[in-house]
Amino acid sequence: MLLEKRIPASYIFNKIKKDLVIIIFIGICAHFLSSAFIENIPEMPGNIPAFLGTAITVLLSFKISQSYDRWWEARKVWGAIVNDSRSFVIQLQSFLQDASNPVIKLMGYRQIAWCYSLGRTLRGLNPLEGLDEYLKEKDLLYITDHKNKPLAIAQLNALTIKNLYQTNEIDTFKHIQLDSTLVRMVDSMGKAERINGTVFPKTYRLFLHFAIYLFVITLSISLREIPLIFELPLLIVLSSVFLLLEKTAYHLQDPFRNRPSDTSVTAIARTIEINIKQLLNEPDIPEPVQPNGFYIL
Amino acid sequence: MLLEKRIPASYIFNKIKKDLVIIIFIGICAHFLSSAFIENIPEMPGNIPAFLGTAITVLLSFKISQSYDRWWEARKVWGAIVNDSRSFVIQLQSFLQDASNPVIKLMGYRQIAWCYSLGRTLRGLNPLEGLDEYLKEKDLLYITDHKNKPLAIAQLNALTIKNLYQTNEIDTFKHIQLDSTLVRMVDSMGKAERINGTVFPKTYRLFLHFAIYLFVITLSISLREIPLIFELPLLIVLSSVFLLLEKTAYHLQDPFRNRPSDTSVTAIARTIEINIKQLLNEPDIPEPVQPNGFYIL
Amino acid sequence: MLLEKRIPASYIFNKIKKDLVIIIFIGICAHFLSSAFIENIPEMPGNIPAFLGTAITVLLSFKISQSYDRWWEARKVWGAIVNDSRSFVIQLQSFLQDASNPVIKLMGYRQIAWCYSLGRTLRGLNPLEGLDEYLKEKDLLYITDHKNKPLAIAQLNALTIKNLYQTNEIDTFKHIQLDSTLVRMVDSMGKAERINGTVFPKTYRLFLHFAIYLFVITLSISLREIPLIFELPLLIVLSSVFLLLEKTAYHLQDPFRNRPSDTSVTAIARTIEINIKQLLNEPDIPEPVQPNGFYIL
Amino acid sequence: MLLEKRIPASYIFNKIKKDLVIIIFIGICAHFLSSAFIENIPEMPGNIPAFLGTAITVLLSFKISQSYDRWWEARKVWGAIVNDSRSFVIQLQSFLQDASNPVIKLMGYRQIAWCYSLGRTLRGLNPLEGLDEYLKEKDLLYITDHKNKPLAIAQLNALTIKNLYQTNEIDTFKHIQLDSTLVRMVDSMGKAERINGTVFPKTYRLFLHFAIYLFVITLSISLREIPLIFELPLLIVLSSVFLLLEKTAYHLQDPFRNRPSDTSVTAIARTIEINIKQLLNEPDIPEPVQPNGFYIL
Amino acid sequence: MLLEKRIPASYIFNKIKKDLVIIIFIGICAHFLSSAFIENIPEMPGNIPAFLGTAITVLLSFKISQSYDRWWEARKVWGAIVNDSRSFVIQLQSFLQDASNPVIKLMGYRQIAWCYSLGRTLRGLNPLEGLDEYLKEKDLLYITDHKNKPLAIAQLNALTIKNLYQTNEIDTFKHIQLDSTLVRMVDSMGKAERINGTVFPKTYRLFLHFAIYLFVITLSISLREIPLIFELPLLIVLSSVFLLLEKTAYHLQDPFRNRPSDTSVTAIARTIEINIKQLLNEPDIPEPVQPNGFYIL
Repeated sequence: MLLEKRIPASYIFNKIKKDLVIIIFIGICAHFLSSAFIENIPEMPGNIPAFLGTAITVLLSFKISQSYDRWWEARKVWGAIVNDSRSFVIQLQSFLQDASNPVIKLMGYRQIAWCYSLGRTLRGLNPLEGLDEYLKEKDLLYITDHKNKPLAIAQLNALTIKNLYQTNEIDTFKHIQLDSTLVRMVDSMGKAERINGTVFPKTYRLFLHFAIYLFVITLSISLREIPLIFELPLLIVLSSVFLLLEKTAYHLQDPFRNRPSDTSVTAIARTIEINIKQLLNEPDIPEPVQPNGFYIL
Repeated sequence: MLLEKRIPASYIFNKIKKDLVIIIFIGICAHFLSSAFIENIPEMPGNIPAFLGTAITVLLSFKISQSYDRWWEARKVWGAIVNDSRSFVIQLQSFLQDASNPVIKLMGYRQIAWCYSLGRTLRGLNPLEGLDEYLKEKDLLYITDHKNKPLAIAQLNALTIKNLYQTNEIDTFKHIQLDSTLVRMVDSMGKAERINGTVFPKTYRLFLHFAIYLFVITLSISLREIPLIFELPLLIVLSSVFLLLEKTAYHLQDPFRNRPSDTSVTAIARTIEINIKQLLNEPDIPEPVQPNGFYIL
Repeated sequence: MLLEKRIPASYIFNKIKKDLVIIIFIGICAHFLSSAFIENIPEMPGNIPAFLGTAITVLLSFKISQSYDRWWEARKVWGAIVNDSRSFVIQLQSFLQDASNPVIKLMGYRQIAWCYSLGRTLRGLNPLEGLDEYLKEKDLLYITDHKNKPLAIAQLNALTIKNLYQTNEIDTFKHIQLDSTLVRMVDSMGKAERINGTVFPKTYRLFLHFAIYLFVITLSISLREIPLIFELPLLIVLSSVFLLLEKTAYHLQDPFRNRPSDTSVTAIARTIEINIKQLLNEPDIPEPVQPNGFYIL
Repeated sequence: MLLEKRIPASYIFNKIKKDLVIIIFIGICAHFLSSAFIENIPEMPGNIPAFLGTAITVLLSFKISQSYDRWWEARKVWGAIVNDSRSFVIQLQSFLQDASNPVIKLMGYRQIAWCYSLGRTLRGLNPLEGLDEYLKEKDLLYITDHKNKPLAIAQLNALTIKNLYQTNEIDTFKHIQLDSTLVRMVDSMGKAERINGTVFPKTYRLFLHFAIYLFVITLSISLREIPLIFELPLLIVLSSVFLLLEKTAYHLQDPFRNRPSDTSVTAIARTIEINIKQLLNEPDIPEPVQPNGFYIL
Repeated sequence: MLLEKRIPASYIFNKIKKDLVIIIFIGICAHFLSSAFIENIPEMPGNIPAFLGTAITVLLSFKISQSYDRWWEARKVWGAIVNDSRSFVIQLQSFLQDASNPVIKLMGYRQIAWCYSLGRTLRGLNPLEGLDEYLKEKDLLYITDHKNKPLAIAQLNALTIKNLYQTNEIDTFKHIQLDSTLVRMVDSMGKAERINGTVFPKTYRLFLHFAIYLFVITLSISLREIPLIFELPLLIVLSSVFLLLEKTAYHLQDPFRNRPSDTSVTAIARTIEINIKQLLNEPDIPEPVQPNGFYIL
């Protein structure tokens, strides 16, 4: 997540440098071709690039809106994970006879492991890394065989809850209430996977880029009588606004890609760890994740 | 679902070739007619096609937005099916005395069959194909008589759960909790059918096409003094942007039509199969569905 | 619901013929008045109608969006009715000791009657017509006295379920679970009534029409030097696009008015009838409702 | 709620007369000042008011959209109140041993009182007026001391339900199910209060008005060579469209202000009264609220 | 929350004074540079700033829309807190044998403390201030050690409810129903934290500012032949509209920052205090929070 800090110009420039080179190339070509054949090529009416620019803005605005919604939905899903993780531990403490039953700590730590491994799975990193701090040897071994590690951790918690029921630690009603909490967490996991795995309609982006190039070409032709030294900066700044906004949208729409604009899943998982450990009255509470310059992951 | 890969130009061109022919025909007619009667027909003010173009963009933007929402809702419904399928098996394992009770496998496999047959029903394919791998002979026979196969499979699972209750395998509370999961799956099925069966307001598309033709005609008249060789490419690229975006919207709004832009229900059903089989500790886990070039179905 | 079929031109033309007559009248008046007093009336700057046209498009786009949302919400409500009707019968079969208990058929048929009578009530038709096929004499008599027939049918089912509880056919938990399903259906009924009974902000439509007339007048004045024979078609086609889109929105926003663009409640109720009868293993399954030319009701 | 009837011109004119006077004053001033100093003041480029007009439309469209959402949410909340009121009575009849237990009527009538007093509270009217018809003397006395009357009525129903549980009329499960219905009604009450008590971002409206005045000034300057007799009507009609739409939005966003565009809470409460009394088989059913000319409250 | 009162000009002016200075500086520079090199620098076509202005409006409109949604969501979350706080006390009174059990007051007061401390935490103020009025010494001590004070208060209530269950004051079903209410409150808390802790995509704002500066520069160049005395006011008022709207959006998107446009969490917490104390029949009911001039916090 980008923070309310000064964002380095290099970060912004890097986002669009490739596209800018293409734009400059197209702009120069269009300029020289239309100047060379100035007598053959008729004048481009000025309102054609203007109308194209408006059209691109409207379409861009739709794209930003949908991308923002995906990004916000991803953040909501992780917010729900925070809430359900907290509620899960409070429920265990409230439902079990003995609030200091070690099984509460076992399941609380599994919940922490679930959050970290889900975050790493979504980002395509090794989901097992660092889990030995939270999981028993046996659990770790069990989930290693599974393709979907977080799902396996959820299954382990479900079976432990079943055990609590079979040993009469909880009654069937509390079994069901805890099951509902687990169902909500499996839902959140699936929602994050859905956002991560669904490609935003590819062609839309293609046609938007096509429209931006068209804008540059028509603008370049309509300004062909202006010296290149004045025309080019105008082409560059105008198309930069479009390209930067398009790129912002593009990054927002996939919030689990190890990029500065990602949903800060590691920081959120750490918050959950802090909350759960405090609810368990654990002695060592870790520090929150620190920002990485202008962003936090 | 289209993937983040190079999309063949032929795929894109095929989408709009019919409409392009009409556009070219209209453009040429308008050009020649207005040139022939250049002295009779007054000049077309340049801001009329420009305003029309802006209007089309705004209306197109609304259409893309609604179509995207349908497509995203379809994906959400299938995401919910993933979540509920996983939860269903975990619930069975947590609720039944014996986590290795063969009835869990029976119902888990029925759930896999439900996903595949729902996907095939939505796409208008034979919903029974390949189900013999997951369903018992008797079940297969029962659902053959039903018009709505997935509904019949859901009914079978409901009756098996009832049986578990009547043989005291589960108590009435767990019966109800499992029933709630079934209700959610019947809901998801109905939602997918609703998206599939509801035609997007037809007239809207008609009037949008009408506006695009009008745009071409007015633009063609207002540019009649420009030689056809320069006018035609401009007409084609400008209207292509509109047509391509309109087509993208059109394909998004019906995501179960066996098209590359479809919701990838087969791949999702396979994911569910993999997850359920791993939760059941089955030995043979199938591979995920492989992309079909630039898309996955 | 309009289908993916050729829509007769007469249907479209009928939608706007009244408004078109007004537009033509206004256009001709404005033309002659401004031509007659051409020396007194100053020129209309061309960007005033263009800006008005853009403004109308933006406002129209908002209206279409909200109207579409109402239409889609209406469809969702009826989708929920489909889902809950199916789930209701499956729940009864799963909850009652004997899955062939005649009370299941009694309540299933009442549910079918509820769907048909709700659809007819919403459309302002006689809600009792054809219900004798699904309701017992006594039930029919009871609901005749009620102002709100579907509500009375829901009450009958609630009392039958109570009876099942009092005769120990179901326990209190299943009583409550069935009650939740009934509550959802009463909710759906109320939602459909809300959409049907809430007038879309009237003044909005008024001011939009006012803006369209203003557009025609300013355009007509600004084109006064063009012969009427060329000006009038342009006025007609441009304002037709606005009027047709406005009318489409107007029809979408009230989806229970016995119009071709209605939500197809009769066809949906028939689907429910087919599903319920198949779940009950009834011998005679009716055919789906057939389209009425280019639409289905 | 405004009905589908002819709306008196006076109602519409009254909405904007104050603002129109300001507009006319500004228009005349700008006209004379810029004409007087015509040699000193340079020409205003025509596309500045045009661009401002488009900008106002876009911003207005956002405002209408959000205001409409508030208005529609208010209507949804009252729709939910209708549904839960009906369900509440049906639940009581289904849950109590004896469907003719007088406590059902007591609570049903309290529910009617709750609806009327909530509607009157939201509109800032005396919430106790007319409640003696539905509440017992003792209840009326109890709620008089409360600042929030509908909340006190809800508390009374909760305590009566508790009594039913303590006298074994209902078991703990039905107690909880009825409690859930009460919770939903307390939610609806809070939602309506939230819409009523939250001021729409004030500054937004301010800046929009500022932009409209700016539009009038720039348009007036750019048209200064046109005689005032032609310029003024144009200024008035163009700004009227903006002002009327802004006012429509302004009225929609606060739907409980005793205005014709209000959510028709009295009529809805009456519908609830009719439904509840019919479910209770009461002999005297009141008539629906009649429209008050072109609107219903 | 800003009230429906006269907003001091100083408040509005302070919002944008920094940006205005930059705008004026840029405007003057662009004016003089382009005037100085008037023969070298070609003319800026008038429709480039006009198109840029339209583009900024469209993008601004998206930003206002998303910011408004955050603000409205924050208000909804606090509305849900109001509803659940009321329901919580009514549930306790309805579920406990003795409605005057002192534990109800204990938990009701904790709930008040929870609301105040959550509001203060969100605003970055000392969350313990003033809580001694509502919390027992021991509770206050317990939560002091916690990083997340409101979470600790929720945990305390959960453990008290467990105690009620262990002493047979409530049965397991009512334990679960109260737990569900607590879960909803933990959800609301997490949602408010999410809105507070998620930075609105930073780059978006940056690029919007960049576009506004670009607008000023291009407009300034295109108007360079107009004397600075007329050009500057036009630049200032046009960019002021943009800057004020952008600032409004910026303030709406972070509604817990101790600013006049904040969600009025203190006033809402006071309303909850009044409601809970009246439900508990407490003798001393505090007054509602009074507005602070043109706003309420």
